[in-house]
Amino acid sequence: MLHLDNSGDLHRWSRAALGRGQTIAFVPTMGYLHEGHRSLMRIARERADQVVVSIFVNPLQFAAGEDLDTYPRDPEADLHICESEGVDLVFMPGDLYPSDFSTTVVVEGLTNGLCGATREGHFDGVATVVLKLFNLVRPTMAVFGQKDFQQLQVVRRMVRDLDLDIQIVGGPIVRDSDGVALSSRNAYLSSEERAQAAILNKSLIAADAQVRAGERDPEVLVEAVRQAVQAAPLARVDYVELVDAGSLEPVTGRLDRPALLALAVRFGQTRLIDNRVLGEEQLQA
Amino acid sequence: MLHLDNSGDLHRWSRAALGRGQTIAFVPTMGYLHEGHRSLMRIARERADQVVVSIFVNPLQFAAGEDLDTYPRDPEADLHICESEGVDLVFMPGDLYPSDFSTTVVVEGLTNGLCGATREGHFDGVATVVLKLFNLVRPTMAVFGQKDFQQLQVVRRMVRDLDLDIQIVGGPIVRDSDGVALSSRNAYLSSEERAQAAILNKSLIAADAQVRAGERDPEVLVEAVRQAVQAAPLARVDYVELVDAGSLEPVTGRLDRPALLALAVRFGQTRLIDNRVLGEEQLQA
Repeated sequence: MLHLDNSGDLHRWSRAALGRGQTIAFVPTMGYLHEGHRSLMRIARERADQVVVSIFVNPLQFAAGEDLDTYPRDPEADLHICESEGVDLVFMPGDLYPSDFSTTVVVEGLTNGLCGATREGHFDGVATVVLKLFNLVRPTMAVFGQKDFQQLQVVRRMVRDLDLDIQIVGGPIVRDSDGVALSSRNAYLSSEERAQAAILNKSLIAADAQVRAGERDPEVLVEAVRQAVQAAPLARVDYVELVDAGSLEPVTGRLDRPALLALAVRFGQTRLIDNRVLGEEQLQA
Repeated sequence: MLHLDNSGDLHRWSRAALGRGQTIAFVPTMGYLHEGHRSLMRIARERADQVVVSIFVNPLQFAAGEDLDTYPRDPEADLHICESEGVDLVFMPGDLYPSDFSTTVVVEGLTNGLCGATREGHFDGVATVVLKLFNLVRPTMAVFGQKDFQQLQVVRRMVRDLDLDIQIVGGPIVRDSDGVALSSRNAYLSSEERAQAAILNKSLIAADAQVRAGERDPEVLVEAVRQAVQAAPLARVDYVELVDAGSLEPVTGRLDRPALLALAVRFGQTRLIDNRVLGEEQLQA
């Protein structure tokens, strides 16, 4: 496994791989890798000649007051995980932003609601770093986790709008045995918080059951999830929303096609997100 | 010569060329091609296996009230010119923006002054379309005319900031026998305006002579150009500025290294720009 930390070296590597006609699958990460990341690497490994993983805690996507400084890191363990998944190249740059860096990629519309409403500049930072990494790696496909569903849709839109010749693949959410979605930020949770965090997925499953039982009122579905989450003493709801999975616009009126129930919940300083598509089997897309 | 109007076809073409290990030189244009464009094509032809020219009048880079609707077009003549310059592929898309297009590339700082001060959103539109075209053509190098000096610097900055593996080459300004810089917009000028337009280059040459004679005061140099241009009865000065050629920040104090004298002048509805680097031989860069 190759390990690069320099943009010039990566450019040379990807130029050579493209010149050999090889396909490249790319998994961008912020490190502290877990089974969720592994699942993305396996999708990548199955589909391309070369698999590249980047590990970079991107300062641009942290809003003021967020956890940039405390974001968990373990580069050695990360490298072992990549190696064990058959990754060909790990890119772990020290920095990606010169002091007079002045270019921003802005995706409008999709970024107004959900996490975009409270995380000022977050999706500009995501779009900008993802585009930089795409230009360094020059992948034929890239794999993103569906836990960060809004991020996945923002990347898809950017790729379409900017005519990037890159296939974007969403990898299913990977969960612990208690249903908690894997996240590097779970490391922040106390054991009490960790136990209560299971309510996120439980409430999504309950909403799914309601839809299966015939409930079609978005407000009823959202309110039930909100109530269920708030019943956990340490949980503070940031948002619960039922949105169109394409436009991410809130569903109004009757639920008449599959939609995404997404939520963000704080436990102390830790902000967790989760989501589930409702009505996939019961409603026409 | 291949002639494509479809983004998917261009993606397939560039993917194949890259997979053969070929180099691609790219000249993006808005058509109505003249000797200035030809000079860029020749630079491209000398330096790469494949030469691609795009012809697209980009609506995003026209501010409200500008000449989008009247911008001169002559696709047949353009194709003949490309053919005669040994171009391999001409890309002439009908449109590049779906109705829900929502991604913008913003380059800050460099775009505040000069043309950026009055052409609202112009450089966002330039950066966005150039990036789209880069992603379609996937060039190893791209050639831009130095007449649009600010555009050239914005593209260079975007390429650096977004880690594009593309060499950016600036082609010298090509002038008519009376010194007027070639521009598709010269077609708008009446014969009287056309005659007076020669004052732009003449005033730049005079400023150059002043620097050679020892003048180092930016205000004196700028004011002399302004006066000279305003002496032409049909000319209205939009701006005359002496700026650092890298940062495009105005030169303050004494001129102690080469700098760019840039100007924009209106003749009726027609806005012309021109520029010249002063002090290249007399001052240390």
